[in-house]
Amino acid sequence: MKTLQDYIDKLNALNFKEMYNGDFFLTWEKTDDELEAVFTIADALRFMRENNISTKVFESGLGISLFRDNSTRTRFSFASACNLLGLEVQDLDEGKSQVAHGETVRETANMISFMADVIGIRDDMYIGKGNAYMHEVVDSVTQGNKDGILEQKPTLVNLQCDIDHPTQAMADMLHIIHEFGGVENLKGKKLAMTWAYSPSYGKPLSVPQGIIGLMTRFGMDVVLAHPEGYEVFPEVEAVAADNAKKSGGTFTKTNDMAEAFKDADIVYPKSWAPFAAMEKRTELYGNGDFEGIDKLEKELLAQNAEHKDWACTEELMSTTKDGKALYMHCLPADITGVSCETGEVDASVFDRYRTPLYKEASFKPYIIAAMIFLAKFADPAEVLKKLEEKSTPRVFE
Amino acid sequence: MKTLQDYIDKLNALNFKEMYNGDFFLTWEKTDDELEAVFTIADALRFMRENNISTKVFESGLGISLFRDNSTRTRFSFASACNLLGLEVQDLDEGKSQVAHGETVRETANMISFMADVIGIRDDMYIGKGNAYMHEVVDSVTQGNKDGILEQKPTLVNLQCDIDHPTQAMADMLHIIHEFGGVENLKGKKLAMTWAYSPSYGKPLSVPQGIIGLMTRFGMDVVLAHPEGYEVFPEVEAVAADNAKKSGGTFTKTNDMAEAFKDADIVYPKSWAPFAAMEKRTELYGNGDFEGIDKLEKELLAQNAEHKDWACTEELMSTTKDGKALYMHCLPADITGVSCETGEVDASVFDRYRTPLYKEASFKPYIIAAMIFLAKFADPAEVLKKLEEKSTPRVFE
Amino acid sequence: MKTLQDYIDKLNALNFKEMYNGDFFLTWEKTDDELEAVFTIADALRFMRENNISTKVFESGLGISLFRDNSTRTRFSFASACNLLGLEVQDLDEGKSQVAHGETVRETANMISFMADVIGIRDDMYIGKGNAYMHEVVDSVTQGNKDGILEQKPTLVNLQCDIDHPTQAMADMLHIIHEFGGVENLKGKKLAMTWAYSPSYGKPLSVPQGIIGLMTRFGMDVVLAHPEGYEVFPEVEAVAADNAKKSGGTFTKTNDMAEAFKDADIVYPKSWAPFAAMEKRTELYGNGDFEGIDKLEKELLAQNAEHKDWACTEELMSTTKDGKALYMHCLPADITGVSCETGEVDASVFDRYRTPLYKEASFKPYIIAAMIFLAKFADPAEVLKKLEEKSTPRVFE
Repeated sequence: MKTLQDYIDKLNALNFKEMYNGDFFLTWEKTDDELEAVFTIADALRFMRENNISTKVFESGLGISLFRDNSTRTRFSFASACNLLGLEVQDLDEGKSQVAHGETVRETANMISFMADVIGIRDDMYIGKGNAYMHEVVDSVTQGNKDGILEQKPTLVNLQCDIDHPTQAMADMLHIIHEFGGVENLKGKKLAMTWAYSPSYGKPLSVPQGIIGLMTRFGMDVVLAHPEGYEVFPEVEAVAADNAKKSGGTFTKTNDMAEAFKDADIVYPKSWAPFAAMEKRTELYGNGDFEGIDKLEKELLAQNAEHKDWACTEELMSTTKDGKALYMHCLPADITGVSCETGEVDASVFDRYRTPLYKEASFKPYIIAAMIFLAKFADPAEVLKKLEEKSTPRVFE
Repeated sequence: MKTLQDYIDKLNALNFKEMYNGDFFLTWEKTDDELEAVFTIADALRFMRENNISTKVFESGLGISLFRDNSTRTRFSFASACNLLGLEVQDLDEGKSQVAHGETVRETANMISFMADVIGIRDDMYIGKGNAYMHEVVDSVTQGNKDGILEQKPTLVNLQCDIDHPTQAMADMLHIIHEFGGVENLKGKKLAMTWAYSPSYGKPLSVPQGIIGLMTRFGMDVVLAHPEGYEVFPEVEAVAADNAKKSGGTFTKTNDMAEAFKDADIVYPKSWAPFAAMEKRTELYGNGDFEGIDKLEKELLAQNAEHKDWACTEELMSTTKDGKALYMHCLPADITGVSCETGEVDASVFDRYRTPLYKEASFKPYIIAAMIFLAKFADPAEVLKKLEEKSTPRVFE
Repeated sequence: MKTLQDYIDKLNALNFKEMYNGDFFLTWEKTDDELEAVFTIADALRFMRENNISTKVFESGLGISLFRDNSTRTRFSFASACNLLGLEVQDLDEGKSQVAHGETVRETANMISFMADVIGIRDDMYIGKGNAYMHEVVDSVTQGNKDGILEQKPTLVNLQCDIDHPTQAMADMLHIIHEFGGVENLKGKKLAMTWAYSPSYGKPLSVPQGIIGLMTRFGMDVVLAHPEGYEVFPEVEAVAADNAKKSGGTFTKTNDMAEAFKDADIVYPKSWAPFAAMEKRTELYGNGDFEGIDKLEKELLAQNAEHKDWACTEELMSTTKDGKALYMHCLPADITGVSCETGEVDASVFDRYRTPLYKEASFKPYIIAAMIFLAKFADPAEVLKKLEEKSTPRVFE
């Protein structure tokens, strides 16, 4: 695209009315138009930043982040997105705060939101918890806004839950769109979302689930590959199958990594923990059975160790389409001989794809900003137009 | 009120010259006009935000927060207030900083203040310490400004000390004013500030003290109720008595919760620690006698347990004016059967008053912003006028 | 100086083209013109702030801080500098982040920099590490920018490394320039950078090294004094000697504190750890030999204790030029009888110089802002001019 007007025209052809004052939980709760609106706004915001046009649409306001798990990239992506739009990030650190002290979600959600325009939450540790917690927060602030407690309803952005990792999957998808020169070129492309061995244990399921839940919507042939016992949520597999049918693509499963890589256009090899084990872990945690958790973790590590052959090797890469499949990862990857003895990917493969991998990550701040933008403005296209007319430089000139 | 001009007219009828370049330590150090100016600016800032008029009066500048105690609501209230005016919050975390490393208050206060317009401090843990510390900080930066070290004198906002909790009490009062339709309607109203049982121990005295020190200034009949042995600072009781005399109200004390609730228009049942015990605790802490502190805490918990009947029950509420007294709390409350087995208030009472309770809290960011605003501008009314003329939207439109 | 034009004229007489898109690692990697440009911009930014002219040149953008060591003043100086220019500080807390989790520097540097205009790093703990790490970061983001991953190349500001502490030394120098009424008055002045006893162990070498590496460039007679065994990096001594030759000053060394103080115009008495010991410590740390580190620390404390006579006493001060040498310190100082039993300086000396000491520190935020400013604008003088024409007030008026 060459001008902002191109993005605006594209937006004007889409229906995303429902996103105004909405939230972003799961990609499969959004229509195709709505997802395309996110991609379009993300590209438009990037275009404007590259052309030194400020996209600061808030004179004041807070973007609240709540991370129940360590995070560098997601933390900085959220901070960057908020800052790009003019919101100041305030981290709700439950160590510092009184959430730990028996305060209800409903109360805390309102207490922190008096001047909050956005709440970003990462809560991916326990099955059945993270997404539910996010809904509790949204219900609380929606009610608070109705009751006249909050002058605005903060928008929730799911920064990773137990079910989906929408900002990751959307950034990954936007990367694919750019690499392949447009959504229209994805039909019939083969994408392999495969498990890979990592010495670390219990990586979230939300990445593979997010990928199969989203990538199946663009007419691609999506293959989910993992050793027996590493199943993901059945509900999400059902979503993927349904998406594939609608989009004219396919969704298949295999326990054979080589089969998944064969002639693949895109490969996404990554470790995750078995759904069943995560459920058990959640139950043990609920019962405060930490001895049981230790025991479970040892079992899982042993189980993982039986699948060290699940690695993205040069040999496997050579079996992909022209030996040149696009290698993807949410990062950080466990690189054999670099970050661990045996890991998800060969060092030479990772190095060859380093630049595309970093570009893949670079879309996330814009995806988050776009999700916020679409929730805050009834006519985002009009806002982009006015911002261009105003043309306040991001960096003084 | 309907227009900003109404607030401006009200301000122009008040004398608050002394607040310019001043600080906010204790409500009873301020004149009635000064307090009314805070309420008026708070309402005006809220009015402007509701009408999407930016009140960003700082292009740059820091708002420094120093919390010696955990805090969600106060932390976010301060952050919201600073952000609303254009100041960026920097938290002086004494863990991270070198304060812990034997640096003097005077030095630290200057070192962090080169570009600080506001310093908000919460230091309520030890009798005779918090307020004194805040004065040390203010004396240091005032001298630093005189000596040409600091280009501006940061304003101190007391976010809770050992004596008063002015941002809480003022927010509570503004809530009362709105609930009763104006200060003029408060004369003769009965307010019961009563102790209530909580399983937790050692809650600060600054809330009840802040309430009796402020609420006695509006012609109300303020009753302080607590079991024997739960006295608050005598000095603050003296302030309350004196206020009541001047305002044409009353200030009485009782050891009978029922008597306090009888026909009350407003009830504020909340746990706190006995003054004498807090003094002893401070002394033990000073001597590093942690064994002694443990012992004291056990004694206090035992003492508390003798007063589980001090609870805000439906039965007690039914004895209030028309059974409909305004129930207040600074939150979080210890709710019987919710956050604890036996607590300060019945769940059904708390639930019925949830919305007003949250609204009560919603005033705090505006109260803090108003305190800053009044300290920074010689003619705040004029500034409001100009902001309205400029009418920069808070959210782009 | 009276008008902004004076600063602009001065800038226009200097050559600092190379600073555009550059970084700031070590003062001796910069030309005299480049250093003078930093001083001039720092003074200009301060002049503008004092005259309530906003110097906010960024509408959005992040300033990332990474502190490998505790810090109050440097943390707040960096935050103040970023805020003054319109950048929001995001702290990369390696506790919170995944840096600790085996993520490579190259990857992290890119992942946090998508919208970062500045990265400030303090990493002074280990010999041969800090400065090297900073270069790794800069190489990573420079490559990332070349590869189209980063839309801008963040500027690195060295907030203290194992070799130099340029923001400290530059702030100290600007203080000297102001105290002596201009660089032109420094020729032939005697500056004594001397070791002093402190009960604490292992203070960084970067301060004395930064001082001798910078102060020798202005025609002063710089004396480095310390007990035998407290040598600093030989490479930096070589830099100092070379600077002195070029500037028409001198650089001498002595093991006699009195000799250094004799007739000195400026004294900078401060504790540091011996280079050799720091090297050994780094090696032990590398080998994870924590027992060895404990042993080494005990040895060093014992060694320090043999030199308690190395203190900035009234008696020694009386031997300086007219008994009135300018006393300097980077703060916090170990003050005899105040922060410790026996320390670097007599309480009466410290008290007499408190105001100049605090002023000395007050230059650091402006020095940091100037380093950023010079890296971000091809024609800083033009930018200052336009900011003056625009004259947006920092505080609304």
